[in-house]
Amino acid sequence: MGSPGRSIDFAKGHGTENDFVIIPDPQGLLKLSEEDVAFICDRRAGIGADGVLRVVRAEFEADWDGDPGLWFMDYRNHDGSVAEMCGNGVRVFARYLIENGLAEGPVIDIATRDGVKPTEVLEDGRYRVAMGPVTVDPARVAVRPVGTPLLFDAWPADVGNPHAVAFLDDHREVDLDALDLGSAPTWSPLSRFPDGVNLEFVRTVGPRHIAMRVFERGSGETRSCGTGTCAAAAAAAVRAGDSARPVSYRVDVPGGTVEVELHHQQTYLTGPAVIIAHGQLILPD
Amino acid sequence: MGSPGRSIDFAKGHGTENDFVIIPDPQGLLKLSEEDVAFICDRRAGIGADGVLRVVRAEFEADWDGDPGLWFMDYRNHDGSVAEMCGNGVRVFARYLIENGLAEGPVIDIATRDGVKPTEVLEDGRYRVAMGPVTVDPARVAVRPVGTPLLFDAWPADVGNPHAVAFLDDHREVDLDALDLGSAPTWSPLSRFPDGVNLEFVRTVGPRHIAMRVFERGSGETRSCGTGTCAAAAAAAVRAGDSARPVSYRVDVPGGTVEVELHHQQTYLTGPAVIIAHGQLILPD
Repeated sequence: MGSPGRSIDFAKGHGTENDFVIIPDPQGLLKLSEEDVAFICDRRAGIGADGVLRVVRAEFEADWDGDPGLWFMDYRNHDGSVAEMCGNGVRVFARYLIENGLAEGPVIDIATRDGVKPTEVLEDGRYRVAMGPVTVDPARVAVRPVGTPLLFDAWPADVGNPHAVAFLDDHREVDLDALDLGSAPTWSPLSRFPDGVNLEFVRTVGPRHIAMRVFERGSGETRSCGTGTCAAAAAAAVRAGDSARPVSYRVDVPGGTVEVELHHQQTYLTGPAVIIAHGQLILPD
Repeated sequence: MGSPGRSIDFAKGHGTENDFVIIPDPQGLLKLSEEDVAFICDRRAGIGADGVLRVVRAEFEADWDGDPGLWFMDYRNHDGSVAEMCGNGVRVFARYLIENGLAEGPVIDIATRDGVKPTEVLEDGRYRVAMGPVTVDPARVAVRPVGTPLLFDAWPADVGNPHAVAFLDDHREVDLDALDLGSAPTWSPLSRFPDGVNLEFVRTVGPRHIAMRVFERGSGETRSCGTGTCAAAAAAAVRAGDSARPVSYRVDVPGGTVEVELHHQQTYLTGPAVIIAHGQLILPD
């Protein structure tokens, strides 16, 4: 209680309410242990966030062997574990760089463990990120939320991580908002995703406009999932026989709205990025 | 998105993981609407907290007609509504005053909507707050958590707000940690608490040492509740026939440990107070 702790700079921001604590560490001098990250992300004892974005010059990052002049996004999950990429996080990261004079737009190449992610700030203030290709598997699985006998047809989709996209459109009586995602839905055959899967539940709102909720493996329901919106848009296009490219889908998530552009070999995710606070936080010794 | 917003100073802290955003406003110039407070307390779009503590000189506070030289704790719930007092919040408020050179210990008189609360910083760094008397009603009610047929005997206790304290000791097979407090427990007769009640579930750990969980009306389960720990200690003393005064109870809550001293006409709550960050946040225009 009398311990002074270690004071470090931070900012807080979010993209469609997927929220992050940003820690500037240009010279890579900060040792952020798993415990430090878990403390920072603790919503009551710490600041609270879904993850941490450490901002470090790529030349000082051992995980990076590309252009040393880029900024490297060291993304950590809220439990402190290392993660490759985060489509909402990279927009917030880009906004942080611009607001703090660390990079100039409109296009910023951001180094991540999943390679360079070119990120563009649009004139309307949104950020547009190249997410890579999405592959939709025509062999569907059956998905069942808890507390319902309903089985939904779901398209497996690979966005670097595994997703399955279930459509509620065949069950008009089911309310997307009322779906119980408090516990993990099940899927069949289980062997299709031996390491688990992120599950999207989608309702068609209009032409190339969908609404979705997402249950992330390891996290539970979240307000938004960047790769999940890409998976949902790609699966919606396959389901609708919409093979035009490029084509743009509007995707409403609980935390806001994003736009997903499907190209032949690329997917662009466009959405807001907000920085709402900055200051100093005290890490326990 | 291009709006600059209003930048204001803030700090974040907690007492046994009951967490608060502290907003310094010495001259009472800040108009904090319900929407502003709800935004600040939003755990994803804002900073996130159980409530806001606005720090204002009492002379500038319309709700106060006592000593104008005190600091007034304008406590707001996370939904923006006004509240009278908060036993965990007042410790964090006192620590904020001391850390920022706004008051000197060891005893600070803090103005609240529930009157002056003398708060003492102890040599071990904990804070001790006079919470007023607790009245325990010998006419018990029956309390039932969801998902169980079990009925627990519960003592109604008044700490300025209504509580009912249920003891698990008659049901050795029930695990306090495993109790489902995801939904509101029920009580009978319902007419005993027409405006709702805060419910404590208590397991005796040893002599004058209890562990508890709390379901707060309007909030659900929380990591700690200051008045709830006072109610639980007073009910435990009544239940044990422990009429010595003063007497001290150790109370373990999910967010930490506090000490409750029962005197004939007064109750003192002693526990930690932590400030973990400070900076500037941006309120939407």
